[in-house]
Amino acid sequence: MNTFRGLGEDPEYHPPALTGRPRDWPLDRWEEAPRDLGFPDFARYQWRGLRMLKDPDTQAALHDLVYELRPRTIVELGVYSGGSLVWFRDLTRLMGIDCQVVGIDRDLSRCRIPESEMAGISLREADCSVLETFEPLRELAHPLLFIDDAHANTFGIMKWAVDHLLEAGDYFIIEDMIPYWHRYSPKLLTEYLATFRDVLTMDMVYANTSPQLDRGVFRRTTHGR
Amino acid sequence: MNTFRGLGEDPEYHPPALTGRPRDWPLDRWEEAPRDLGFPDFARYQWRGLRMLKDPDTQAALHDLVYELRPRTIVELGVYSGGSLVWFRDLTRLMGIDCQVVGIDRDLSRCRIPESEMAGISLREADCSVLETFEPLRELAHPLLFIDDAHANTFGIMKWAVDHLLEAGDYFIIEDMIPYWHRYSPKLLTEYLATFRDVLTMDMVYANTSPQLDRGVFRRTTHGR
Amino acid sequence: MNTFRGLGEDPEYHPPALTGRPRDWPLDRWEEAPRDLGFPDFARYQWRGLRMLKDPDTQAALHDLVYELRPRTIVELGVYSGGSLVWFRDLTRLMGIDCQVVGIDRDLSRCRIPESEMAGISLREADCSVLETFEPLRELAHPLLFIDDAHANTFGIMKWAVDHLLEAGDYFIIEDMIPYWHRYSPKLLTEYLATFRDVLTMDMVYANTSPQLDRGVFRRTTHGR
Amino acid sequence: MNTFRGLGEDPEYHPPALTGRPRDWPLDRWEEAPRDLGFPDFARYQWRGLRMLKDPDTQAALHDLVYELRPRTIVELGVYSGGSLVWFRDLTRLMGIDCQVVGIDRDLSRCRIPESEMAGISLREADCSVLETFEPLRELAHPLLFIDDAHANTFGIMKWAVDHLLEAGDYFIIEDMIPYWHRYSPKLLTEYLATFRDVLTMDMVYANTSPQLDRGVFRRTTHGR
Amino acid sequence: MNTFRGLGEDPEYHPPALTGRPRDWPLDRWEEAPRDLGFPDFARYQWRGLRMLKDPDTQAALHDLVYELRPRTIVELGVYSGGSLVWFRDLTRLMGIDCQVVGIDRDLSRCRIPESEMAGISLREADCSVLETFEPLRELAHPLLFIDDAHANTFGIMKWAVDHLLEAGDYFIIEDMIPYWHRYSPKLLTEYLATFRDVLTMDMVYANTSPQLDRGVFRRTTHGR
Amino acid sequence: MNTFRGLGEDPEYHPPALTGRPRDWPLDRWEEAPRDLGFPDFARYQWRGLRMLKDPDTQAALHDLVYELRPRTIVELGVYSGGSLVWFRDLTRLMGIDCQVVGIDRDLSRCRIPESEMAGISLREADCSVLETFEPLRELAHPLLFIDDAHANTFGIMKWAVDHLLEAGDYFIIEDMIPYWHRYSPKLLTEYLATFRDVLTMDMVYANTSPQLDRGVFRRTTHGR
Repeated sequence: MNTFRGLGEDPEYHPPALTGRPRDWPLDRWEEAPRDLGFPDFARYQWRGLRMLKDPDTQAALHDLVYELRPRTIVELGVYSGGSLVWFRDLTRLMGIDCQVVGIDRDLSRCRIPESEMAGISLREADCSVLETFEPLRELAHPLLFIDDAHANTFGIMKWAVDHLLEAGDYFIIEDMIPYWHRYSPKLLTEYLATFRDVLTMDMVYANTSPQLDRGVFRRTTHGR
Repeated sequence: MNTFRGLGEDPEYHPPALTGRPRDWPLDRWEEAPRDLGFPDFARYQWRGLRMLKDPDTQAALHDLVYELRPRTIVELGVYSGGSLVWFRDLTRLMGIDCQVVGIDRDLSRCRIPESEMAGISLREADCSVLETFEPLRELAHPLLFIDDAHANTFGIMKWAVDHLLEAGDYFIIEDMIPYWHRYSPKLLTEYLATFRDVLTMDMVYANTSPQLDRGVFRRTTHGR
Repeated sequence: MNTFRGLGEDPEYHPPALTGRPRDWPLDRWEEAPRDLGFPDFARYQWRGLRMLKDPDTQAALHDLVYELRPRTIVELGVYSGGSLVWFRDLTRLMGIDCQVVGIDRDLSRCRIPESEMAGISLREADCSVLETFEPLRELAHPLLFIDDAHANTFGIMKWAVDHLLEAGDYFIIEDMIPYWHRYSPKLLTEYLATFRDVLTMDMVYANTSPQLDRGVFRRTTHGR
Repeated sequence: MNTFRGLGEDPEYHPPALTGRPRDWPLDRWEEAPRDLGFPDFARYQWRGLRMLKDPDTQAALHDLVYELRPRTIVELGVYSGGSLVWFRDLTRLMGIDCQVVGIDRDLSRCRIPESEMAGISLREADCSVLETFEPLRELAHPLLFIDDAHANTFGIMKWAVDHLLEAGDYFIIEDMIPYWHRYSPKLLTEYLATFRDVLTMDMVYANTSPQLDRGVFRRTTHGR
Repeated sequence: MNTFRGLGEDPEYHPPALTGRPRDWPLDRWEEAPRDLGFPDFARYQWRGLRMLKDPDTQAALHDLVYELRPRTIVELGVYSGGSLVWFRDLTRLMGIDCQVVGIDRDLSRCRIPESEMAGISLREADCSVLETFEPLRELAHPLLFIDDAHANTFGIMKWAVDHLLEAGDYFIIEDMIPYWHRYSPKLLTEYLATFRDVLTMDMVYANTSPQLDRGVFRRTTHGR
Repeated sequence: MNTFRGLGEDPEYHPPALTGRPRDWPLDRWEEAPRDLGFPDFARYQWRGLRMLKDPDTQAALHDLVYELRPRTIVELGVYSGGSLVWFRDLTRLMGIDCQVVGIDRDLSRCRIPESEMAGISLREADCSVLETFEPLRELAHPLLFIDDAHANTFGIMKWAVDHLLEAGDYFIIEDMIPYWHRYSPKLLTEYLATFRDVLTMDMVYANTSPQLDRGVFRRTTHGR
């Protein structure tokens, strides 16, 4: 479930370390201070000390979607450090939503959620290529928000979700990959998406809100099936 | 305390309304979907239904600063709808920090925080040009984070804070205005800032993280005074 | 009438001072010369030694508008150093237009126009919130060009101008503020502007010509009222 | 002397004509107004009805240079419509400088300066490849500002000017062509410029101020020769 | 035929020389490596050691056009170092097209094609202003691809080609100059192009593919004449 | 070896199909023609009808590298349609280099090279995680150019290549992935690369030449091992 398997990512959050400049910049040389960050921005995103691979614009958009949808279940494929599961749990609690957060991954060893923070969160080890693993999700409450952040067998899972899981108004979100797939395989991608035309639409309020959600936020229609 | 007095802003949060396109975009025409948002982005920022004038990158940076500093007091000049006060309160609670959030404004009538959400938050009506109004802040706990979001008498208040309020490691932040002041009055701005060279430094970890915090995050040094 | 009151601007023109490089760059190291300016651009704009807060694109657009309209009166709210009043006077004289230039400000102490340069220019100290102060303008000749560069009670003044001052073909221009107002208050701004739909239109020849004139150039229609 | 000989340019100024939109845009549809200009910007630049091939940033930079240098002579190679000659004349008169403006071109037929506007301006038909044509310039007063806007035999003329015309503090400016020459012939361009290292320097205050003046503003040094 | 006559270009290919950095960058300082090229990109374009003034995007677009059109003749006005003639010859041979490549220039002295590489290529010295020089082209095979890279009398030659040379489906391409002509003479350019409306169309598959081919790829229509 | 396994890419080249516009654009409406391509650019890259995932800037950089290095062997991990193998073969032949091109992939079924085009090219089915599969490469001639375009076990293969395959001056190139790895795992990536500091350097002439080669072109040093 890790696109960059060849490398092996570090799930720990590391506070930014400045390169080539002091942290304390003197104010009588204020105008000469460098304007770039001095550290890589993405690897630093965190929530309460857990590394998080959703950037700020994505967080803002998902906050708004959760606020509008008030989901009873949030499923995320791809757990990694677990930061976004904790974030979804915190967010729904603050909004007073009784919501179950479910994280699914082929390999849960990189998860860093401390035991004391697991309330409202459940983890499942599963293989995206075996659709039977998703069967237990059929019991979960709606409205439901389903996020693909694993990117293995995505369209197979999307078909299964439409056929067996999603009710009208539920969401299926593909994070991160739409721009790459569109760059390398535009013909196939548009064909794949078009096969869902009777059962999903793209929600234009959220589909353009951040590069990570770029054109990948889909809503189950009432008609169809 | 409102820069755009001539207009009168609307403190209510309004969900985005699309112009010139349907919300449900059909998937067999996926590739033709417009890429711009279809609504103004800034006016839409919110936290749990309260409008918030901090954009996502600013929120991420302040989250990180609060996580590192663990402030016992957060003071914000300029309350407006009150969204960011609630957000600071929620954030410090989730992090297990015993923190008092204080909002100060000349006019509290636009504040939209419901009575039931006021725990941990106190509001004060005060005039930025009368420095005596800030005297009661001297009782508050440290570490302390002070944010100027009102932009009236900023440097007078900054001088007072350095002389009477800030301890080593505390922060003074000027939001939004540094780029405009630097554009219209670079000479004066650099002179003003240089007068603080013995007591404040710019913190390079946070000072470049978003346009709203651009070169305006200052930390009280241990030396000086 | 000064948006950045907190700072206090310097109305004097200061020639650019280079930072971090010599003024004379050797030609055998021509290719290594830095490409950025080496000084803040905006604070340097001037006309014949008087500092001027209109950037070159704005000057070009207003030159074209004056050339087309041939105004008999130009009113500018917000005088500051007075540079643009002298510029308007010089421009209309060179074009052979018999034009009166009127500058209005709450505080004329920053004005730097030498006594010897006051021909064709008149200054008035007035408060934008007291509409009666504008009554004497009703005697002035048309065509008339009215520029709001003070940004206090703008829409109150615009309403008064439409009701009591502007004739068909006259202009009302809001400088600098439209982008900020649109960013922070899009809903209110569009509502305010829409109330003028029967009496003003946006002139698309000048409304996009510079960031300072961005969507803020309005023309009195013949119909309406 | 016309780079785009293949086409034949129109020296007349034409007011901008909007394409695809009305000039009067209704204010109740203000937010939907297109943001692009709706007409080509460059061809529209003018000074009092004469077309002018200097853009606003270039005008601002040359205004500042004239204000600082107070030239007694301005020579421009390449006359075209003559707009910039009139502009230089107007500018120096307003500044109280006793200055002669000299325009030189191989073909003066496109010049559009009316007879009544010729005071302080002289025109000469000359061929840039015949350096003898420039001999009469040796009588002219200093400080002197020399602008190459013809781009034929530029470096031959620059050599001649350094040897026979320019005094310490005088300027030689190459407009428009440096970026193209640098793109297509970086090696030769840097070699050519380096040969002037003892007699000219690049003036970093003006050399970066606009794309048209990009790295092409040179000042005669006191030493050398 | 050389736009930048004033300078005199170097037709030799020179491998890039780094400025301000070593060629071998140590991997334990990998992250600090500069991101810019360190040398001018354009002057470096080459094909098998011959300098070439077509950038990579232009090459890709012309590859695709040649692959689709399978031209029997390619004529290029403007030979310079001859790199693109060799490239066209190599390309058509690899594609198994029996194609004659013809280079025409006023001055062939800068051509650097070695004698051993002349197979399939012919060179002619000719003056673009004398249309009779093009008469021999009437014997050449079709489909035919005609590229103007000399930019002298372009529209005269285009008229002659349409009247005497191009058959339905043949191409006439103007390289490099459309953006400059459009910037300085939009009115004349659009008028000139419009006179060809019955005999040429712009091919939208290739006309936007690179800055050098920007809006300058025209195809002979079947109708007309 | 396919990063976007979830989708399944189409190895066929498809000529671009315009959306929302005619291919033949009339010249009397030339100025209104849209400026964007009207089709996805990346999927269209091809060499003589074979789809190719190297963009034009990458091709130009690799052309220059091959021209300089004159490799006797080129190994590419990740074959896909095989377009770049044919391109490398054509290129080296035109340059008169006796070079063997070797393509390695886990799955060769998508390869589209016709039998008649296989001269000088050999294909091997192999698994990147089993380093023994690379043993036969030890027989191949030098200089050698090794390109990782499969991105599975990249650093394991890089270690093996340094230990067993690469001679001084040989190249190891990582295509496409450096920016993503640097975005998601900057700490690990820099640590991994630093372990090669004694045996590889980054070649600054090619390492910045295109986004696909961004900071991923490494050269075997003479020292080390």
